[in-house]
Amino acid sequence: MPNENTTQTVEYTDLEVLNYHNKNFPTPGKIEVISKTSVRTAKDLTLAYSPGVAVACTEIEKNPETLGLYTNIKNTVAVISNGTRILGLGDIGIAGYPVMEGKSILFKALANVDAFPLILHEKDPDKFVSHVQALAQNFGGINLEDIQHPDCFYIERKLNELLDIPVFHDDQWGTAIVTLAGLFNALKIVNKKIENVKVVVNGTGAAGIAIAKMLLTAGVRGENMMSFDRSGALFSGRVKGMNPYKDELANLVNPKKLSPSLAEACEGADVLIGVSAAGQFKSSYVKSMNDDAIVFGLANPVPEILPNEAYKAGARIVATGRSDFANQINNVLGFPAIFRGTLDVGATDITDNMKIAAANAIAELTAKDPIHEERIIISPTDPRIMPYEASAVARAAIKDGVNTNSVTAEEVLVSTENRLKFYRKHISPLVEKRQEFLKSI
Amino acid sequence: MPNENTTQTVEYTDLEVLNYHNKNFPTPGKIEVISKTSVRTAKDLTLAYSPGVAVACTEIEKNPETLGLYTNIKNTVAVISNGTRILGLGDIGIAGYPVMEGKSILFKALANVDAFPLILHEKDPDKFVSHVQALAQNFGGINLEDIQHPDCFYIERKLNELLDIPVFHDDQWGTAIVTLAGLFNALKIVNKKIENVKVVVNGTGAAGIAIAKMLLTAGVRGENMMSFDRSGALFSGRVKGMNPYKDELANLVNPKKLSPSLAEACEGADVLIGVSAAGQFKSSYVKSMNDDAIVFGLANPVPEILPNEAYKAGARIVATGRSDFANQINNVLGFPAIFRGTLDVGATDITDNMKIAAANAIAELTAKDPIHEERIIISPTDPRIMPYEASAVARAAIKDGVNTNSVTAEEVLVSTENRLKFYRKHISPLVEKRQEFLKSI
Repeated sequence: MPNENTTQTVEYTDLEVLNYHNKNFPTPGKIEVISKTSVRTAKDLTLAYSPGVAVACTEIEKNPETLGLYTNIKNTVAVISNGTRILGLGDIGIAGYPVMEGKSILFKALANVDAFPLILHEKDPDKFVSHVQALAQNFGGINLEDIQHPDCFYIERKLNELLDIPVFHDDQWGTAIVTLAGLFNALKIVNKKIENVKVVVNGTGAAGIAIAKMLLTAGVRGENMMSFDRSGALFSGRVKGMNPYKDELANLVNPKKLSPSLAEACEGADVLIGVSAAGQFKSSYVKSMNDDAIVFGLANPVPEILPNEAYKAGARIVATGRSDFANQINNVLGFPAIFRGTLDVGATDITDNMKIAAANAIAELTAKDPIHEERIIISPTDPRIMPYEASAVARAAIKDGVNTNSVTAEEVLVSTENRLKFYRKHISPLVEKRQEFLKSI
Repeated sequence: MPNENTTQTVEYTDLEVLNYHNKNFPTPGKIEVISKTSVRTAKDLTLAYSPGVAVACTEIEKNPETLGLYTNIKNTVAVISNGTRILGLGDIGIAGYPVMEGKSILFKALANVDAFPLILHEKDPDKFVSHVQALAQNFGGINLEDIQHPDCFYIERKLNELLDIPVFHDDQWGTAIVTLAGLFNALKIVNKKIENVKVVVNGTGAAGIAIAKMLLTAGVRGENMMSFDRSGALFSGRVKGMNPYKDELANLVNPKKLSPSLAEACEGADVLIGVSAAGQFKSSYVKSMNDDAIVFGLANPVPEILPNEAYKAGARIVATGRSDFANQINNVLGFPAIFRGTLDVGATDITDNMKIAAANAIAELTAKDPIHEERIIISPTDPRIMPYEASAVARAAIKDGVNTNSVTAEEVLVSTENRLKFYRKHISPLVEKRQEFLKSI
């Protein structure tokens, strides 16, 4: 059992959160839209706007492929939600906007992707899709966020069919990619091969289904995997509580169509992953697992089993979604770099190979420093991770032929480093200047 | 006839425009979305995003009126178009995006309003309205832009009915407000009263109808005004080439239902305003006008009559939409400050009085320095104009009772000055740092 003192605790108060959102200059909130060009002289106004701007418009009209040469569109991602499943808070609509703004500033500060937050006032999935279709031409990619399942599956699939820009539902794939990265290193530590491990995934929401699919894509064998929802184990032909997305997954796992309890399924399992709810994993489940058990309890804010309890029950490696325990499976490690690499090569899609490449890159870079039971995954604030991961994603996009320009993976590495260098040197320090100014007035 | 040397010429080449749009760091285009808060440590990530951000969301859910305390929404305007009438270029769709980005940076640099450009891929007016309805909760106001008429009238009216945030079609009201400001000073110079002047307006597009309506609101008498379209003078009951918006205006002007030619209508007129097309005003029209004729030829890029020609024909005061002649009627003088004042007091609407207040403020501040035939209107880059105008708009909003908070007009003046001071000191200089960085890599 690891020493409790090695966990990094991030404590905060409600007031700190509210001040972080309110006490900003020039206005409350976390984002700001600024100009990259000079807007000082009459000539600037002429070039930026009427009449000079007509030259840029005419050029784009004649050659639509120059859109990315004269606008910021190809570096911009829409962070779009319908507000129906904001964190653990449920359907709170526009009250979820701070999450979208938060995601936008992480996109920018971590990977220099411009992101704009939008919570659409529309719950009908088809109408939601039609709104996003009308918006899409203004963006290089769409990051779907906090949409209730199973609508999220339908919406993502439909938009991917309709749009020629990448659409990525981060609650599914972001979480799955970072989970996979953590698992890669956990398996290295316990010296087990992915094609041999027995895996149980509890939860068939957005993340649960995506994690199960990603594990299969990464090499876990269907006959070694069980997926659980509230009605028990999925299997092909099950009737109760199914939907088309669970059906799809049911066809890929549990080929013997067994129907054990979750407790029974854990017996002899190597990996237990929860994306379900607080307290779903009992100590007895973990006790019955194979030696060197790996337990990821990813429910937020309270995991399926607390790390101490899991360790006491014999788990060797434990991860959660929380920043106050070791081994945080944090999707912040995924989306910024995934979109950085995707946008840089003008990818029309985010393929399975690009997702696996992102997971591999996170695992590899983590393992450049010693990995151990309490360090299976790197911190998203490590300055090396985003360029490295973005480059890996770009390489996979090029290999899959979904790129639309001639940018190379090596160029993505260097340009991402440069962008972040500029941001750290000139944009980040504005925070202190804002605070000083706010105090001076 | 004024000395030609006193006009300020703004010349530019196509290459300068394209470089202005392309040679920017970190990406082409004119806007960038940055963070106002620190995104450096694990704690920052916790406060900005999961799990800390839930505190801000919960607070907004409990007290919806705190949305503006914890997000940037109430300082953000959507610059929305359907791309159907981009400048003089027509229906070019997303190729018009540089105009929207240009408008966004003018909003920010001139009045510190965050603005985000969106050209919706949707030409059907009702579907367009439904998309904007779904988007509206993310913004403090909507600036409609470059939408063909008469759709623009329908869309603006419908959205104003449906939404509780201000909706402003700048091609109508922005142009009308700045035209009115110019006219106020022109009338001072020629010593004529607005309620006595005979006015001819040529053009019944977005700007033409709005200008006519604003002039009536400001004191021009209906019996002293004629409005022309391609089919001749509007009058109540006219059938050919009408639409509901022309019908409305026709009921307010030309009560004798005369049907003169444009040339005939100019005889004895004091003011001739064109928002139509190049070359529509012949010298003979101007010659037949009253003494001290005021001629505004606002067609872009080539006015209804060139200033030299108008002066030769006897005009005393001439204005155009161009930056390369004196007296530019430039809507940049309007929209930034109008939204600044509107957002600051949380106005639910932009009322006629607020529009008139904006025009008066522009005229008044211009007249604080000597006005004369070639200086009827201040430059939008004059640092005094935006705070002064925003404050006047706020005062009118408060007087009309459309404000939703307790901010005063005096506070708007000071806070606008402070915001712009910060922008000039810390954000504008980033332009040079970007260029240096770009050269260094």
